[in-house]
Amino acid sequence: MAVKTIQWKNDRVIMLDQRLLPHREVYRSYGDYRQVAEAIRSMVIRGAPAIGVAAAMGVALGALHAPEKSFDRDFERIVAILGKARPTAVNLFWALQRMRAVHSAQRSNGVAAVRQALKAEALKIFRGDILANIMIGEHGAPLLGDAKRIMTHCNAGALATAGYGTALGVLRALKESGKKFEVYVNETRPFLQGARLTAWELMKEKIPATLVTDNMVGYLMQQGLIDAVVVGCDRVAANGDVANKIGTYTVAVLAQRHGIPFYVAGPMSSIDIDCPSGKDIPIEERDGKEVSHIFGKALAPKGMKVFNPAFDVTDHGLVTAIITELGVINPPYKKNIRTYVSD
Amino acid sequence: MAVKTIQWKNDRVIMLDQRLLPHREVYRSYGDYRQVAEAIRSMVIRGAPAIGVAAAMGVALGALHAPEKSFDRDFERIVAILGKARPTAVNLFWALQRMRAVHSAQRSNGVAAVRQALKAEALKIFRGDILANIMIGEHGAPLLGDAKRIMTHCNAGALATAGYGTALGVLRALKESGKKFEVYVNETRPFLQGARLTAWELMKEKIPATLVTDNMVGYLMQQGLIDAVVVGCDRVAANGDVANKIGTYTVAVLAQRHGIPFYVAGPMSSIDIDCPSGKDIPIEERDGKEVSHIFGKALAPKGMKVFNPAFDVTDHGLVTAIITELGVINPPYKKNIRTYVSD
Repeated sequence: MAVKTIQWKNDRVIMLDQRLLPHREVYRSYGDYRQVAEAIRSMVIRGAPAIGVAAAMGVALGALHAPEKSFDRDFERIVAILGKARPTAVNLFWALQRMRAVHSAQRSNGVAAVRQALKAEALKIFRGDILANIMIGEHGAPLLGDAKRIMTHCNAGALATAGYGTALGVLRALKESGKKFEVYVNETRPFLQGARLTAWELMKEKIPATLVTDNMVGYLMQQGLIDAVVVGCDRVAANGDVANKIGTYTVAVLAQRHGIPFYVAGPMSSIDIDCPSGKDIPIEERDGKEVSHIFGKALAPKGMKVFNPAFDVTDHGLVTAIITELGVINPPYKKNIRTYVSD
Repeated sequence: MAVKTIQWKNDRVIMLDQRLLPHREVYRSYGDYRQVAEAIRSMVIRGAPAIGVAAAMGVALGALHAPEKSFDRDFERIVAILGKARPTAVNLFWALQRMRAVHSAQRSNGVAAVRQALKAEALKIFRGDILANIMIGEHGAPLLGDAKRIMTHCNAGALATAGYGTALGVLRALKESGKKFEVYVNETRPFLQGARLTAWELMKEKIPATLVTDNMVGYLMQQGLIDAVVVGCDRVAANGDVANKIGTYTVAVLAQRHGIPFYVAGPMSSIDIDCPSGKDIPIEERDGKEVSHIFGKALAPKGMKVFNPAFDVTDHGLVTAIITELGVINPPYKKNIRTYVSD
């Protein structure tokens, strides 16, 4: 993989600091699980699948250093602290659940065995995510077919996953299949994942791309410049409602108005079957400074009140299909998602 | 007026440099009409009605310094250069047309009389715009009635006009009528007129306001947080299609989906009866650097392609009513706009 979002190396977690992209490629090395939790919270790493991998590695790291005599209690604390890092992406909780299951299963074999198994599980989650993304690409590329101008929002690329990407994985696969197309990249305020991260990935990949501000989406579609939209997801409810980066709902509403297919790409670990609908997905609200400041410099007058919800929910009625590693889920979602999950 | 957007003083044009707001209040003083044209182009001053006033003052300024022997030829060149400053706001061409009519009417009285009459006309356009805005406020406030949470996009305030504002004029009048409400301000990328200018005006006016990024509009409406939208306009076509700052169309589509009234406020000088529909309105495309850079620092990777349309067109079907100084124009617009214009 050209992009090394997150790695496990010499019993440390290494992350590319995405806050500094595209200008600087700085890698952070963490030896303490609390640093991993803080890296997730402060968005050194972001993107639902990548957050899941980071949380799993954080647990493995914490377990390595938890003393034997308080191991089980410490394990619970490690999981609890990582579980509070960010609330919306379900992959975080899915990964912690997998780590917890390993702990339970190996507990009787002693602390050394548990530590070993947790590390193995974190690496399995890491590798599994890359494989899932490659399969998402394989299933998704034929859906996009001959679309020439494809829009994406935020970054659902190698940087948002263990590698390859979900939405950008579909675009990578489309390119590998020999199709010619260009991408419209929404800058994705306030954190600018589109302008900073997706633009960077697509340039590396030599996929022709054009950057626009988020409020240009309507104009582009009205002008007939967009053939399809593909985005990632932070959590898919049992009814097919999709939580994703703030602004996704707006893109989906505009796509429907203009008869443009709107695809959501994500691993099965993004599906939360216990969440009946989008109303039940917690939406993270982040520091207003992300909106009012850029590069530490204020955009708005001092004292201006700011609202900064980090995600929104797209009604399942606006989603053309959900692309997973197991295949493409079509409407009706309530029925079809249940089939995929129980398979 | 607390906000001095543009003034005519000692035969010079004084402008508040809006590029430096909200952090610095710097006034520019121009003695040459070419500087005025450049100030319009580079957005020292912006907002359709303010651009009209600036163009009129630019003509008056140019006429003051045009030598007598080549006056008529120079006058044409002055009007032509100011006419190329920006293409979308029709107020620019409306103001130049008024100045041209004064030149024609006074020509036989000699250059001194023409200069005097042009200066008087520019000041008449300036004062007329303030009066129009106050009337727009008077007609618009009752429409908003008991709306408690009002969204606006870009800046259609005192800074976008000779004073008082169109959309913000309606909000000022609403406050003066004793109503309590709060405003959601879309930051309005790329130039951030919302975050920098509207936030600044509303704070000065002590109207409670919250800043959001443009891609939060859908979420806010979905959550039931918006009761009404009011925006300005750069040009209204004969069928009621509205050109306004990029992103306005997106807000209007979302408002319709959520059953939220969408009002457009502007003087009659923003109505272009010779323009049959929005398709006929030229949409300015500006330098990509406005999108890719903030405070001179790059957001996107070097070499990233950028698209920067500065306006979009909102279909008249999405517009609840158009608020002018002559009254509120309701659908059907094609018929009703014609009535207002011919009155």
